[in-house]
Amino acid sequence: MAPAKKGILERLNAGDVVIGDGGFVFALEKRGYVKAGPWTPEASVQYPDAVRQLHREFLRAGSNVMQTFTFYASDDKLENRGNNLKLTGAQINEAACDLAREVANEGDALVAGGVSQTPSYLSCKSKADVKAIFRKQLDVFIKKNVDFLIAEYFEHVEEAVWAVEVMKETGKPVAASLCIGPKGDMHGVSPGECAVRLVKAGAQIVGVNCHFDPMTCVETVKQMKEGVEKAGLKAHYMVQPLAYHTPDCNCQGFIDLPEFPFGLEPRILTRWDMHKYAREAYNAGIRFIGGCCGFEAYHIRAIAEELAPERGFLPSASEKHGSWGAGLEMHTKPWVRARARRDYWENLKPASGRPQCPSMSVPDSWGVTKGHADLMQQKEATSKEELEQLFDKSKTH
Amino acid sequence: MAPAKKGILERLNAGDVVIGDGGFVFALEKRGYVKAGPWTPEASVQYPDAVRQLHREFLRAGSNVMQTFTFYASDDKLENRGNNLKLTGAQINEAACDLAREVANEGDALVAGGVSQTPSYLSCKSKADVKAIFRKQLDVFIKKNVDFLIAEYFEHVEEAVWAVEVMKETGKPVAASLCIGPKGDMHGVSPGECAVRLVKAGAQIVGVNCHFDPMTCVETVKQMKEGVEKAGLKAHYMVQPLAYHTPDCNCQGFIDLPEFPFGLEPRILTRWDMHKYAREAYNAGIRFIGGCCGFEAYHIRAIAEELAPERGFLPSASEKHGSWGAGLEMHTKPWVRARARRDYWENLKPASGRPQCPSMSVPDSWGVTKGHADLMQQKEATSKEELEQLFDKSKTH
Amino acid sequence: MAPAKKGILERLNAGDVVIGDGGFVFALEKRGYVKAGPWTPEASVQYPDAVRQLHREFLRAGSNVMQTFTFYASDDKLENRGNNLKLTGAQINEAACDLAREVANEGDALVAGGVSQTPSYLSCKSKADVKAIFRKQLDVFIKKNVDFLIAEYFEHVEEAVWAVEVMKETGKPVAASLCIGPKGDMHGVSPGECAVRLVKAGAQIVGVNCHFDPMTCVETVKQMKEGVEKAGLKAHYMVQPLAYHTPDCNCQGFIDLPEFPFGLEPRILTRWDMHKYAREAYNAGIRFIGGCCGFEAYHIRAIAEELAPERGFLPSASEKHGSWGAGLEMHTKPWVRARARRDYWENLKPASGRPQCPSMSVPDSWGVTKGHADLMQQKEATSKEELEQLFDKSKTH
Amino acid sequence: MAPAKKGILERLNAGDVVIGDGGFVFALEKRGYVKAGPWTPEASVQYPDAVRQLHREFLRAGSNVMQTFTFYASDDKLENRGNNLKLTGAQINEAACDLAREVANEGDALVAGGVSQTPSYLSCKSKADVKAIFRKQLDVFIKKNVDFLIAEYFEHVEEAVWAVEVMKETGKPVAASLCIGPKGDMHGVSPGECAVRLVKAGAQIVGVNCHFDPMTCVETVKQMKEGVEKAGLKAHYMVQPLAYHTPDCNCQGFIDLPEFPFGLEPRILTRWDMHKYAREAYNAGIRFIGGCCGFEAYHIRAIAEELAPERGFLPSASEKHGSWGAGLEMHTKPWVRARARRDYWENLKPASGRPQCPSMSVPDSWGVTKGHADLMQQKEATSKEELEQLFDKSKTH
Repeated sequence: MAPAKKGILERLNAGDVVIGDGGFVFALEKRGYVKAGPWTPEASVQYPDAVRQLHREFLRAGSNVMQTFTFYASDDKLENRGNNLKLTGAQINEAACDLAREVANEGDALVAGGVSQTPSYLSCKSKADVKAIFRKQLDVFIKKNVDFLIAEYFEHVEEAVWAVEVMKETGKPVAASLCIGPKGDMHGVSPGECAVRLVKAGAQIVGVNCHFDPMTCVETVKQMKEGVEKAGLKAHYMVQPLAYHTPDCNCQGFIDLPEFPFGLEPRILTRWDMHKYAREAYNAGIRFIGGCCGFEAYHIRAIAEELAPERGFLPSASEKHGSWGAGLEMHTKPWVRARARRDYWENLKPASGRPQCPSMSVPDSWGVTKGHADLMQQKEATSKEELEQLFDKSKTH
Repeated sequence: MAPAKKGILERLNAGDVVIGDGGFVFALEKRGYVKAGPWTPEASVQYPDAVRQLHREFLRAGSNVMQTFTFYASDDKLENRGNNLKLTGAQINEAACDLAREVANEGDALVAGGVSQTPSYLSCKSKADVKAIFRKQLDVFIKKNVDFLIAEYFEHVEEAVWAVEVMKETGKPVAASLCIGPKGDMHGVSPGECAVRLVKAGAQIVGVNCHFDPMTCVETVKQMKEGVEKAGLKAHYMVQPLAYHTPDCNCQGFIDLPEFPFGLEPRILTRWDMHKYAREAYNAGIRFIGGCCGFEAYHIRAIAEELAPERGFLPSASEKHGSWGAGLEMHTKPWVRARARRDYWENLKPASGRPQCPSMSVPDSWGVTKGHADLMQQKEATSKEELEQLFDKSKTH
Repeated sequence: MAPAKKGILERLNAGDVVIGDGGFVFALEKRGYVKAGPWTPEASVQYPDAVRQLHREFLRAGSNVMQTFTFYASDDKLENRGNNLKLTGAQINEAACDLAREVANEGDALVAGGVSQTPSYLSCKSKADVKAIFRKQLDVFIKKNVDFLIAEYFEHVEEAVWAVEVMKETGKPVAASLCIGPKGDMHGVSPGECAVRLVKAGAQIVGVNCHFDPMTCVETVKQMKEGVEKAGLKAHYMVQPLAYHTPDCNCQGFIDLPEFPFGLEPRILTRWDMHKYAREAYNAGIRFIGGCCGFEAYHIRAIAEELAPERGFLPSASEKHGSWGAGLEMHTKPWVRARARRDYWENLKPASGRPQCPSMSVPDSWGVTKGHADLMQQKEATSKEELEQLFDKSKTH
Repeated sequence: MAPAKKGILERLNAGDVVIGDGGFVFALEKRGYVKAGPWTPEASVQYPDAVRQLHREFLRAGSNVMQTFTFYASDDKLENRGNNLKLTGAQINEAACDLAREVANEGDALVAGGVSQTPSYLSCKSKADVKAIFRKQLDVFIKKNVDFLIAEYFEHVEEAVWAVEVMKETGKPVAASLCIGPKGDMHGVSPGECAVRLVKAGAQIVGVNCHFDPMTCVETVKQMKEGVEKAGLKAHYMVQPLAYHTPDCNCQGFIDLPEFPFGLEPRILTRWDMHKYAREAYNAGIRFIGGCCGFEAYHIRAIAEELAPERGFLPSASEKHGSWGAGLEMHTKPWVRARARRDYWENLKPASGRPQCPSMSVPDSWGVTKGHADLMQQKEATSKEELEQLFDKSKTH
């Protein structure tokens, strides 16, 4: 039998770098197993080979955390989407746990069970109701004995605090990650104040994920850290950003970009952009460093390669990757061989090859059509019926 | 037992659209299984699960052709790269055939065995020597009973003609695909003349793959078609372009872009760009339509969705994709739901989010450093020893 | 004899919009009469026709203020530049006053005498010495009886306060305009605090000029206004920005852009950009609205046209300009005639036609060469000898 | 009395470089004296000081040719535009000749009288009628004794040939300049063939002006030269391009760009771009090198500075311009002084400072609105009545 792995808090307390994984919904959407919009989590049951393969790619790239693929897998969310497979939330969550554990066992990774924001909160259900939703998912995580818990992708710190409170009941280590930027949550609570509330609620690790590009996310976590330290509290920090450049986002993040979710390609970060991100995050004192939507295995590997001097080893997948392009030494064309060096890739400013490509978008919110603007007024849908009504209305424009 | 599938020529003679697969080396490099530069094909032996999964994604996206992952798997090429697994070319080629056949059997796809240009030709080996290299790979393809053969990624039509001549000995249908643009092959032979030579050598299908973006490739195949028709000959046509925008390439294609191969992200085509490509290729009379480097499953799916009216069915993966963004009708944010329509995505001009991103690159060949320019003079390496010498020299710059 | 014109304070007290003029040094440099770098003000003596013509263009475009072309015409500055015409500062300043008055008399414009920051301040001369420099120029302005005074283009509020103090001795109305952005002056004094100090020193009009683009300047003046109001003081506000887009500037403004001063063309604002600027400035409560470097007559005319409804009249030069492109109705090409409408020009996003043109620059300060970085360390030159020494040193790099 | 100046043919026969002037209509439009659309030439009568000043700037910048400001000053054209000053064509043309001559006498410049394409030709008037129109302008040129004649801005070579034929009757040297690109005239006659026809008609100098950027124009004149030489003929060559980058133009040139004529700013060439143009034109064997729309004095000066080694002298305006930015040695900021060198400016790729600025436009002809497309169908207007009808129609869209 293998010796017990070090737990998440042991690692962070020891000052280890913990590398997170990348984004499942976007990667599986491109591979054909998840539908954009409802972001169907039932793939764990329907297409376990595809989900397992993605876990393996991240493990091989250096990830120390296998997050269960349970994004938007709360019962109230599944119901809204008219899940026609008749799968229960428990079935989906269990299958996701089994896949994550299977691959985690193949290397030095822990399993983290994750819950996200719920339609119940958006439709103003009571604190008790919202907590009941979280408990259903957590029951599965406890049954499957995950190593720790993450409350992630919360736009409202209040709901995240409720999630943390429920998670604390389990006795597992708790991380809390909001999808906010430097301007704070949807009610304007600053990153520093958000972090303080989460730590006070019991989260041992706090940070942000999704919605913004790496540098923006690191900046936001820096503010969280300042807030926590100013309040005389202590915490560990995590960051799992997008792999898309988002300098033109407003507070809602990349959801508001006109390119979301099917035209984001020109914004994808290169592996060299990821080296800068990893270094910046490390320098900011963040030790749980991973990715979210858009992150593929080679992005995670770039983090592991940048931090190899600190960690003392390279990830398995570096077997197929010479650092800073060294593998190009074996290319047949002389001018490509000349690129097998760090300064070439570090200084390259890639062109888009799109002659009509501007650097920044015109946010949807700047207007365009009247019908469109009308839609903008409507509140977010929180149930299937509501969504269907809104959709019917939108078709009349 | 399943009824025999229609062969490649039966399909094309009947006017069917045949959808090719996407690019293996770039996709597997990002996933961590192939090394850029030597583009190591031994993954079929080392990591069969990863290769099989990629085949499956393309099948599910609509591909009718599973190409054996045998790019650069000729014996002379493997030798040059100092293959430290001590695998023979035959072992690698056989494993690749088995994986392609396994997945092809899961749906309506054929297996195509492929050979590519060789170091032997570049180092001016005799016609007999070069043909002997091709024969080694072909022996495996015959043993494994592939459905048809493709000579692909040839920069010199002369070598491609030799490949076709050897392939014709097998009695299998033969396709020939050059990696050239509208300016023709590396000796300045025009696309039309290249195509005529290949057809005369016996190729039943001719076209181009790799090196240029979709519209440039379709334009090149159009010229091939004109040449063939002008010569009073007949052929079927194929096109398998890059999934990168390359308006700023010279005759060597994307190899010459400064971003090759690790900074191409801002150039990746969206799925909507692929709709335009599929339609353009179809309108040009091309019926074997696929992809090469950069093509992922969702790009292939877009081809299958654009041509669904002609073909009469959608691919399996469309189960997880509403045409033209229809799945967004189920998104919670109203302004994202408003994007669930064709004209939105058809007209979107995506921004790069990179404030210093120009539209076109400055080709390496425009100069820069003297040392660099010196390297440009050197001829391509054709053996391991030569590569090592060149590399040693380059380090002195 | 013509009736006396309303003075600058009468106009502003009455709520009138006062339109400033555009930039002299940049316009005359392009026309061949001023040298970039020393920005030679002796053109008033050497080429009076050229200077007069430029005044006339601004008058005709709607300017109500003819600023004497006395930028950098203080005695200490002239001396540093090795003025080989042997002209005294007084000669240059007098000629400039005469030209401004001559043209002002041709329409409804006032003459403003201007002083700018001095090398004496930069080289840490005493308050008395610096004030003596200002007095020399002011003696000319009083002799020539200008209508009011402007202390403009000051990077350090302390020096501007000294200028205002000297100006107040004359009894003329005093305006004070810093070349700062939202981050404040070179010592980090905020715009609000700068404005308060200037008002307390006696300036009746405060604002900013040069260094930043229109929207940034309006934003800075807004902060000044807030500061003044918060302090319970009263003032009028002025803004005279660049006609260049400068989103990528740091606190030193466009001087720090790599394109300064000979590669700024792609940043030039269109007349339609100026409509937005004029409206924004007006809405912010600014009533003295003009331009600085890069502003040509057609930019000033655009301000006058945008504010014609408020002012009740169009400028003379609108005789040759249909509002919002109406003159194109007379174009021979049908698709150009179709552009004779406001929404066309208001929504146009012009392309650069430069395929390698990014949206933002890489500031010089981000590095590049070592020699360059060394130069960056050196302090500003304040005398001719110092300049020559620095130049000799720079040539060794 | 001054010694007689060398004539245009004497200069070109001797191999001298003749520098043309820049663009009058665009420069005077920005200064407030000409209306875009009708491009009103009556400024010579109304505002002689403004026109004289512009001539002087070009002379001082190095121009050897003062072109009479008679663009679109043929009688049929003036009539169409409802000239409300009741000036005759002769009055306008005479005033223009006097101004050109006055300034030419101040330096080493010749006066060239110019005729352009006519509405009469577009409305299919007879050859005799069109020639009669040209004769009216030429009568003035002969009366005022211009030094040579230029038929310029012709889109149809047939009409240009007619103009040359009439000009030849005068005995003056004749130049002919089409506003075409490499694809030839509006009937598809190639540049080479156009040039042959013009030379056969008697033109001693042939070339192109307006409509395209410098490099495109040089390329077109190269084709003209090849055509003329292939036909065994002899000629001198001239080029007077736009000062705007136009890589995205179709055969109609910049008229077809969405930015024409009021949003072209980001496309303006820098002085350093002009150095490259002057060298390229010189190397192509062109010896009459000038500019058209967008060219200001500093652009012409750049041509004269680039070719100073060949010509042996600098233009007067270089007194106020250190070559390659040398004047910056006197700037106070050290990092600006560091830009006083050729390689800095030669390699600078200027940014646009416009975050939504793409490199290329979407040509109007790609569609957009239906009403717009309808307008595109309509033929060019050739009379005032027709224009008014078309305008009325366009307003209904």
